[in-house]
Amino acid sequence: MIRHTVVFKLKHSNGSAGERAFLTAADVLAKIPGLQKFEKLRQVSAKNDYAFGFSMEFADQAAYQGYNDHPEHTRFVSERWLPEVEKFLEIDYERL
Amino acid sequence: MIRHTVVFKLKHSNGSAGERAFLTAADVLAKIPGLQKFEKLRQVSAKNDYAFGFSMEFADQAAYQGYNDHPEHTRFVSERWLPEVEKFLEIDYERL
Repeated sequence: MIRHTVVFKLKHSNGSAGERAFLTAADVLAKIPGLQKFEKLRQVSAKNDYAFGFSMEFADQAAYQGYNDHPEHTRFVSERWLPEVEKFLEIDYERL
Repeated sequence: MIRHTVVFKLKHSNGSAGERAFLTAADVLAKIPGLQKFEKLRQVSAKNDYAFGFSMEFADQAAYQGYNDHPEHTRFVSERWLPEVEKFLEIDYERL
């Protein structure tokens, strides 16, 4: 199991229509084959300044790579992620 | 539901006895009342330099606070976390 997470902050202001549109657009990712347990999350710790997170799991590295290469993912990255995300950090986990 | 996560890097070298001892000592946290789904994780993305993570869930803010204030937690922080962790980032999530 590989859990892929990304914590991020949008260029949109809090509670804006742009923010809502971005988060809704991300639903396209949930339909990509191999992706499990897709979660859209609000980051709530005051110890960092990120506002949202996505979390998803893959059975193995091949499934993760299939997601990364999937045209719906690469399109989301180029059309929504790159123009609308101010900062982000990717963190991936395997169980110890 | 609040998911509390912390991604971190130890002062111990990779695969060392000190690393193993720290990760085993963290099991004490799993017994603290209110803590759910405790996971010890290896961070595997090459896009950051953290090596491990812990993830846990709490039903609500009161349960999270109870964990933070619990003597087994504060003892772990003072006796193991502060002396042995080189860098860390806390990220907390709620479902959107």
